[in-house]
Amino acid sequence: MSLDSLLSPRSIAVVGAGREPGGVGRSVFDALLAAGFPGQVWPVNPRADEVAGHRCFPDIASLPGVPDLVVIAVPAGAVPAVVEESSAAGVPSAIVLSAGFKEAGPEGVVLEREIVKAAAAHGMRLLGPNCLGLIVPGSHLNASFAGVMPREGSIAVITQSGALGTAVLDWARSRGGLSGFVSLGNRADLSESDFLEAFNADRATRVIAGYLESIVDGPRFVRVARECARTTPIVLLKAGSSEAGARAVSSHTGSLAGSDAAYEAAFSAAGVLRARDTEELFGMAEAFAHQPVPSGSGLVIVTNAGGPAVMATDACAKAGVTLAGLMPETVDALRHALPAAAALYNPVDLLGDAGPELYAETLRIVARDPGVHSVLVLLTPQAPTLPKETAHAILAAAEASKITTLACFMGEAAVEAARRTLTRGGVPAFRYPERAIDALAAMERYRTLASRPAIEPPVIEADRDAVAAILDEARAARRSFVLEEHASDIARAYGIPTPRGAVAADRAAALAAAKEIGYPVALKIASPDILHKSDIGGIVLGIEDDATLLRAWDTVLDRAHRRMPDAAIWGAMVQQMVPAGREVIVGVERDPTFGPMIMFGLGGIYVELLHDVTFRLAPLDGAEARRMIESINGAGLLRGMRGAKPADVEAVADVLVRVSALVTDFPEIVELDINPLVVADRGQGAVAADIRIGIGGS
Amino acid sequence: MSLDSLLSPRSIAVVGAGREPGGVGRSVFDALLAAGFPGQVWPVNPRADEVAGHRCFPDIASLPGVPDLVVIAVPAGAVPAVVEESSAAGVPSAIVLSAGFKEAGPEGVVLEREIVKAAAAHGMRLLGPNCLGLIVPGSHLNASFAGVMPREGSIAVITQSGALGTAVLDWARSRGGLSGFVSLGNRADLSESDFLEAFNADRATRVIAGYLESIVDGPRFVRVARECARTTPIVLLKAGSSEAGARAVSSHTGSLAGSDAAYEAAFSAAGVLRARDTEELFGMAEAFAHQPVPSGSGLVIVTNAGGPAVMATDACAKAGVTLAGLMPETVDALRHALPAAAALYNPVDLLGDAGPELYAETLRIVARDPGVHSVLVLLTPQAPTLPKETAHAILAAAEASKITTLACFMGEAAVEAARRTLTRGGVPAFRYPERAIDALAAMERYRTLASRPAIEPPVIEADRDAVAAILDEARAARRSFVLEEHASDIARAYGIPTPRGAVAADRAAALAAAKEIGYPVALKIASPDILHKSDIGGIVLGIEDDATLLRAWDTVLDRAHRRMPDAAIWGAMVQQMVPAGREVIVGVERDPTFGPMIMFGLGGIYVELLHDVTFRLAPLDGAEARRMIESINGAGLLRGMRGAKPADVEAVADVLVRVSALVTDFPEIVELDINPLVVADRGQGAVAADIRIGIGGS
Repeated sequence: MSLDSLLSPRSIAVVGAGREPGGVGRSVFDALLAAGFPGQVWPVNPRADEVAGHRCFPDIASLPGVPDLVVIAVPAGAVPAVVEESSAAGVPSAIVLSAGFKEAGPEGVVLEREIVKAAAAHGMRLLGPNCLGLIVPGSHLNASFAGVMPREGSIAVITQSGALGTAVLDWARSRGGLSGFVSLGNRADLSESDFLEAFNADRATRVIAGYLESIVDGPRFVRVARECARTTPIVLLKAGSSEAGARAVSSHTGSLAGSDAAYEAAFSAAGVLRARDTEELFGMAEAFAHQPVPSGSGLVIVTNAGGPAVMATDACAKAGVTLAGLMPETVDALRHALPAAAALYNPVDLLGDAGPELYAETLRIVARDPGVHSVLVLLTPQAPTLPKETAHAILAAAEASKITTLACFMGEAAVEAARRTLTRGGVPAFRYPERAIDALAAMERYRTLASRPAIEPPVIEADRDAVAAILDEARAARRSFVLEEHASDIARAYGIPTPRGAVAADRAAALAAAKEIGYPVALKIASPDILHKSDIGGIVLGIEDDATLLRAWDTVLDRAHRRMPDAAIWGAMVQQMVPAGREVIVGVERDPTFGPMIMFGLGGIYVELLHDVTFRLAPLDGAEARRMIESINGAGLLRGMRGAKPADVEAVADVLVRVSALVTDFPEIVELDINPLVVADRGQGAVAADIRIGIGGS
Repeated sequence: MSLDSLLSPRSIAVVGAGREPGGVGRSVFDALLAAGFPGQVWPVNPRADEVAGHRCFPDIASLPGVPDLVVIAVPAGAVPAVVEESSAAGVPSAIVLSAGFKEAGPEGVVLEREIVKAAAAHGMRLLGPNCLGLIVPGSHLNASFAGVMPREGSIAVITQSGALGTAVLDWARSRGGLSGFVSLGNRADLSESDFLEAFNADRATRVIAGYLESIVDGPRFVRVARECARTTPIVLLKAGSSEAGARAVSSHTGSLAGSDAAYEAAFSAAGVLRARDTEELFGMAEAFAHQPVPSGSGLVIVTNAGGPAVMATDACAKAGVTLAGLMPETVDALRHALPAAAALYNPVDLLGDAGPELYAETLRIVARDPGVHSVLVLLTPQAPTLPKETAHAILAAAEASKITTLACFMGEAAVEAARRTLTRGGVPAFRYPERAIDALAAMERYRTLASRPAIEPPVIEADRDAVAAILDEARAARRSFVLEEHASDIARAYGIPTPRGAVAADRAAALAAAKEIGYPVALKIASPDILHKSDIGGIVLGIEDDATLLRAWDTVLDRAHRRMPDAAIWGAMVQQMVPAGREVIVGVERDPTFGPMIMFGLGGIYVELLHDVTFRLAPLDGAEARRMIESINGAGLLRGMRGAKPADVEAVADVLVRVSALVTDFPEIVELDINPLVVADRGQGAVAADIRIGIGGS
């Protein structure tokens, strides 16, 4: 779907533009004129003949033509009628700036539903309500009441907070400029995903930067973002990452955010880069907007000061950025060009009296080294330093080399103008070396993410009918959990190994089952009415022979009859004892925004004490499952350490993929826990020793 | 020792001030005059009669008096003579700006030694060489060639990097100002500890902020910093925290930094706050300089924008800052004062059209709440916002309430002036909410640190002579490790529990020892020549009775005789088998800067895979040992979880304190490992099952 009528309208009506300056509608009207919008701009206001010297119209019907875009700034109660009229007249797009909708309480919710319905009736798309508007500097379009027109640039900004939007616009005025700015407001119709698509298609946009507190349609977002991120880096600040933050979000937007683990998983699946804070969001956006993504991972630091170079080096270690080893030819060339006391190895220290020409020459030399893919140029304003001239020298060198170049000029007044020169000239200039390195690290992450193949969940051979039947039965019996026996059946239907076992109706059948399975076995009471078998003593473990099995049979059935006299007893399950192995946990949680998430972690204290678990959105493929296993801190335990053999990681990955397929196929499974999945040595498989499956309504 | 002659000189000679402007000496001379230094300033230069209209003197002897301070800016080779002359003339202090000393290679090292000797000969103190100089704005003293005079303020800056110093000075010009600035240079004489003492004694200084790459005298630094930190917060950026960073440090300063774990431990012992990066250093310094340390941990966020408040809330969760729960009276008062749609609970959202008066009224109301100890005031520049007026309202409210107040005005041009107004007026104003919260978190850490009692290592009853004898014997035998039997003796001499055991010379003695100890026991070959007993099969574990013991005796001795025919055999050690328990590790490493560090962690994979260990400087007391145990991620395992009883944490703390006393008493112990220390349930003690003690020369 194209948003052309919204982002590149030929004509705009502003409903609610007042005779007097001030007021939201009039501010937008003035902003449109001030920005030099080349198309038609019509004020609409039944109580005015003229607005700012322009003929005013009483309603949409009276306009000389059907506008491409209607901007609505009338009190909330009057909005539905205007939306209705515009939509009916064939207007393709509207922006509702007015507040007083969902964010204002139950009555607002009703009003918001009305305008969505009225717009949809004739296919009109709607931005807002309760938003700051829309700005497209390249089209001289300022349909907002932000009071600021940013310079034209290549960063597209999407913000769920209008107030934060004003700060972004203010920031953009003194920096590299924007290709677009959208304040999403309540997202009654158009949402973040629509604008990701639109800005990805926009040639002026090189990076999309967003501030979000929640996401409207999780699965669509992941799909759209993943597609966009192949060509346009997406950098998002997701606020409300803490529990208290999430509460604050829901109190001020009325929308329920999913868990932060789900956002992490979704961003990872979508290839979205997550900024930890506003400063990082800006830094990453500027780096992507103005510099090429580095083609490799070798960074050179060029500096006139040792201390800041050390700080940058520390930051590299923290962020996982690699310092390039310079070739002997490069070091030789530097030796000729630089003063005797200079440091020739990376970081390259030109010393305190380095002038612009020395910087330029050094940048020329290192750029020729094939192991160098990016450069950070550091400068502190020492007595002989010429910040402005050095900035120009850096710009020229970056232009010539095409190598990813970032700068950090430390200080304030003495370097502020030089920083601005650099940033506006296309080399983002940071105040602090750590921030520059963080931005570079994001670019390197993007290089990896963008080249990663899409997840292609394999087709799993499964007995779906059997699973459906079990789930139907459980729902019919109004259980919220599937019986243990049936959970094993479900797992087996999807090829997830479980201990061998069979429900025996009598002692003879139990003996036969044990013979079939082989000792040692466990015996567990089998009853649709007994969920907590161990609570009534309904489980005996480690049975080694027939005699013990028969004794156990009597014990278990006797206990069941005595303690649960009304329970229907099917007999008892004879089950293989799972041999010892490394224990891991596989789980599924359903996030309200993103749907099923697969959880993986090491068992026991690793989960309980160290919280060493990781989440991914379903569906998974084998490659992603392996990355998932590798991503936990304790992954080394599975690789084999302290003399242990490597565990069967492939078998774990296979279980993850199968669990993912299961919960994708059956949305009614709201919870699943394999705890433990017992993993044998490499090549020997893994067995789901205990499975619990929770089901929801529907 | 007082540095008055350096920091508050009455007269200054500048040796090397040239006739023509430019050059280091002349720059300092000009800077002194420009700053309006009220005392005498004499240029010294044999090749000039007059410098900048002032009479010039050929040497120190010709001066009309003995200056309090000599600033030296002549080529390195000429410096020793000037230092010699000054020192002999009775000058108490000198600053050597000249480079070309230790940092320049072996010849420089020799020159540096000469000037230290010459200065010390007559008790002259020396700053530098290879430094930027010294600035004390309150005394109109600018003895530097930085080219910048910062405004007068309350932050004292100590920097090991002159180049970073220039950036700090530039920053300080547009912010809150400095009480002092020292560029340490090569620290041939005066070092960070001297200036910590001096600035702590200085009434104008409210916080000391430093950039360091290494520390000259670790133990002195810890002692001095701990004393200073009681009254003056110390915030340090220690660069070279990564391995690559540490290499970069040593390549550009020629000094060897200790390990980063040692710095962490030292800063923790000294109560020094560590800034993670330059930006945090500045933020923390400004907060301490201008605002009182909060008297409690309840923060209120007041905002005109929901999004930034969510970001601040997230930052609080990350940094461990607590949002205050407002009293019902406070909420009622807010309800009366604020518009209907405002958020009354913390964060308090005044909405986008909040004016200065609404901010002021809100600050007045929340300041009356006894649960509120600090306030963060957020603002984004929305259309109706008045940033400058709001800044003044905040300053007035902060002045009246005396409550810790920080501000964050997001944006650039629209709020830059207001941020400056706030910061200069005493309310530090940040660009990003996360930075403000980080600064507040540092203040709260300081409140805890400053009130923490000093570490008072208890007096340990110990048989020091026995230990000395063992160490002497091992040194005499040229061993780098103490024999296992002797390591146990050393431990026992300090009251560290070890398995009971005795060396038996024959089978009968072995039987008697086993009877005394009680089965099960272990048998280990005893020989001064066999260090790796298990390699030759010299250990048998889990011996349950006399017969098995005798068989083991024959086996062990036979193997020793066959495989090490030349070894002197003392017999074999009969040792108690340590009952199973939770295993932890206690270790000692000797850091080149800070001396002995005690290491604690859980055993096995916790150390190897998860690196879950912590370090503290020796000596420890019980309270610090307990904090140490609590500080590891896996501490919960010792508290008892998954049904396990709590472990004997007191016994572990006791071992830590005793190990700390041992290695403090005996510096020749360079390495010690108790692995594992087997910890029983609470009240049941802990046993050092295996001890290894490494010794160094001396």
